[in-house]
Amino acid sequence: MALRVGVVGGGQLARMMIAPAVELGIDIRVLAEDEGMSAQLAATEVGDYRDLDTVRRFAADVDVVTFDHEHVPQDVLRALVAEGVAVHPGPDALRFAQDKLDMRARLAELGAPQPDWARVAGPDELQAFLDAHGGRGVVKTPRGGYDGKGVRVVSRADEAADWFAGLDEGDALLAEELVPFVRELAQQIARRPNGESVAYPVVETVQRDGVCAEVTAPAPGVDAAQAAEAERIGREIADGLGVTGMFAVELFQTADGRILVNELAMRPHNSGHWSQDGAVTGQFEQHLRAVADLPLGGAAPIAPWSVMVNVLGGPADAGMLDRVPAALAASPRAKVHTYGKAPRPGRKVGHVNVSGAELDAVRADARAAAAAFD
Amino acid sequence: MALRVGVVGGGQLARMMIAPAVELGIDIRVLAEDEGMSAQLAATEVGDYRDLDTVRRFAADVDVVTFDHEHVPQDVLRALVAEGVAVHPGPDALRFAQDKLDMRARLAELGAPQPDWARVAGPDELQAFLDAHGGRGVVKTPRGGYDGKGVRVVSRADEAADWFAGLDEGDALLAEELVPFVRELAQQIARRPNGESVAYPVVETVQRDGVCAEVTAPAPGVDAAQAAEAERIGREIADGLGVTGMFAVELFQTADGRILVNELAMRPHNSGHWSQDGAVTGQFEQHLRAVADLPLGGAAPIAPWSVMVNVLGGPADAGMLDRVPAALAASPRAKVHTYGKAPRPGRKVGHVNVSGAELDAVRADARAAAAAFD
Repeated sequence: MALRVGVVGGGQLARMMIAPAVELGIDIRVLAEDEGMSAQLAATEVGDYRDLDTVRRFAADVDVVTFDHEHVPQDVLRALVAEGVAVHPGPDALRFAQDKLDMRARLAELGAPQPDWARVAGPDELQAFLDAHGGRGVVKTPRGGYDGKGVRVVSRADEAADWFAGLDEGDALLAEELVPFVRELAQQIARRPNGESVAYPVVETVQRDGVCAEVTAPAPGVDAAQAAEAERIGREIADGLGVTGMFAVELFQTADGRILVNELAMRPHNSGHWSQDGAVTGQFEQHLRAVADLPLGGAAPIAPWSVMVNVLGGPADAGMLDRVPAALAASPRAKVHTYGKAPRPGRKVGHVNVSGAELDAVRADARAAAAAFD
Repeated sequence: MALRVGVVGGGQLARMMIAPAVELGIDIRVLAEDEGMSAQLAATEVGDYRDLDTVRRFAADVDVVTFDHEHVPQDVLRALVAEGVAVHPGPDALRFAQDKLDMRARLAELGAPQPDWARVAGPDELQAFLDAHGGRGVVKTPRGGYDGKGVRVVSRADEAADWFAGLDEGDALLAEELVPFVRELAQQIARRPNGESVAYPVVETVQRDGVCAEVTAPAPGVDAAQAAEAERIGREIADGLGVTGMFAVELFQTADGRILVNELAMRPHNSGHWSQDGAVTGQFEQHLRAVADLPLGGAAPIAPWSVMVNVLGGPADAGMLDRVPAALAASPRAKVHTYGKAPRPGRKVGHVNVSGAELDAVRADARAAAAAFD
C-alpha cells in the first residue's frame, strides 16, 4: 500500500514534491487553493486551508499532512493533531515560523545567535529601539511576510505608522538591529519525527529587492569551523523547536565572521533548490522522507559547486514555457525547473540549477540559462 | 503554452517520464492500456494502442506522440504520420525495433558488426544454420519478444518446432550465431529530429534468465578505443535508421575485444536507468527533450561510477512499497525507483541507483538496497 502524503497548498514547493513522490511510490495528494495551480497534477482537492472542515476532510484520506507554506492557522493544525492526524511539521514547531516575535523569543531561550531585537507596541518604543541602535533598524510585521514583504528598513518610527495603525489590540511589531552583514548564508536541515537529522552544506544566498536571486552551494570561502557552526545552529534550532521535515535557517555573516539567525522556514526553501540536481538527495525528496518518517537520504553534494538562479516573471503576457528551449540551449548542463505559474513581474516562476567543478563556469552557465527567460 | 507530449503505453517507462516532464513544464499525457497502470498519474486516456481511432483521438490533443513500448502497429503509425502527426520515433525507424529480421538485414546494409544470422523459414533451414555454426545457435521470433521471451538457445531444429508451427504463411524465424561473448554492453544515444545526437558512456549489463539484473556505468575496463567504437556503432545505427528519442544498442563483447550488435531499443531502456541519478541528464528527460525537438542535455556521468540493480517481483502478495523504508535504510545514497506495479515473480517492479567514487562500494550499496525488497 502506498504511503499517502497530503500537502496543504498547491504552489511550486508542492509541485516539486511530485517528481520524487512518483519515484518513491508515494501517493502525493495536494489541497490546492485554486484550480490550475503549480501542483495541479497532484491536486485532489481545491479548498480553503483556513477552513477546518476542508482540511479535516482532506486529511482523512492521507497518512501524513505536510505543507507547501506555513500559513495554516494554529487552531486548524491543533484540531487535526487532537484528532490523531500526523501533521509534520506540527503546530508547536510551526508557530515559530508563523510569528517572528515568538521566533525571536524562543531563539533567545535556545541561546541561538541573533540580531538585537525588541517587541515594539507603538512608535515610541520603536523610536527608542532605533535611537539605541544608531538611528536605524529593521521593522517587521510578525506574521504574513515573505519575499521581502512585511520588512522595512527605517530610520524614523513614523515610517511604520501604517503598520502600527493596523495592529489589533495587544499586538506589536518586531524591531531588529540592522546587521552590518557581509553576506547571507542559509543552512538546511532535514529532521525526522524521531529526531534523526541530516545537514546540507551551508550555502550562500544573494537577494535582490528582498527576493532570493542566486544560491551557491557550498558557500564559497566558508572554512570548516564556520560550516560546523552553521550546522550546529541549524541542528540546535531544529531540535529545540521540534521541527520535522525540511528546515531552513537564513543567516547573516558579519565582517568579523559571526553568524546570526535572520529567518526560519519549516519547509523546502528557495535556498535549498540547488539540491534537486546538486546533492545525493534533493530537498523535496528529503522532505517527503522526513515527514513520512522514512530513512533520510545523504545530503552530500554530487559536484564541487552548484549554483541556483531564480527565474522571475516578466511582463504578464510573456510565455515562460516558450523560452525553455533557449534556456536549455544556453548550457547542456542547465537543469530547468518550471513552476507552472502565470508570469507576473517579479514573481518566482522557475529556477535553473547547474553543478560542476569550476565555480566561475558553473555560475556563468546558470546565469546564462536563467537569462534566456528574460 | 506548455508543450504536450503524448506517450502511448502506461508502463514504467512512461511513469519515469513524469518527473522530468513536471520540472520542464511539459504537459505529459499517457494513453494507458488499463486503469491503474504505472503511469496512472499522467494517464488521460485508457484504450487499445492497436486501434487507429483510439490513437488518433489521443494524438489530436498533443504536439508529439512517443512511446512506452515499440508495439504500436505500423499501419497505425503510418496513418498518424500521413495525417500530419509528429511521431517520434517514426514508423520508418520503429520497424527495425519491431522486427528482428528487418533489423538484421538493415544492420547488414549499414555495415554494423553483428553475429552471423539467417532467415529460417522452416526446421530444415534452421538445422542447416546450426550445423554450420558448431551445432548450436539462438533462434528468435522476429516480433513480440522482450526480457528473454521469444529467444531460445537450441541445438536441434525441433526445439523450435512449436514456433515454426505457429508461423503465418511466408513468415520465418531468425537464427543467430551463439556468440561466445565475455560480457554484454549497452550504448545509449539520444537523437533529435534534426539529427543532433549525444552519446552516453557505454555501460556493462548483466542479465539473469534473460532479464537485465545489473548495470554498471561506465563499463569497467573499457578502454578509450572500445568506448569510441561503441559510440560510433550507436551513432551510425541511430543515424542510419533515423531514430528519434532515446536509442539503446545492446552489444556483445567477445574475448578478442570485438563488439557485436545484439538488440536495439527505440525508447528509454533498462540499461540506461542509471542515468536518472548518475548523469547530468537522465534518459527520461533526454527522451522528452529529443522527441519534443528541444536542445539535448549533457550525458556526462556525475560520478566516477554508477550501478543500477533491478528489483524483481516476489510472491504475488508481497507489498513492494512496504519495503521501501528498508531499501532506503540500506544506504543513504540509494535512489529508489518504484513502478507502481503489482508484484509477480520475476516481474520488474523497480530499481535502485547508486553513484559514487569507489565501484565496489557503489555496487555493494546498490545491491544491498535492492536486496531489501527480497
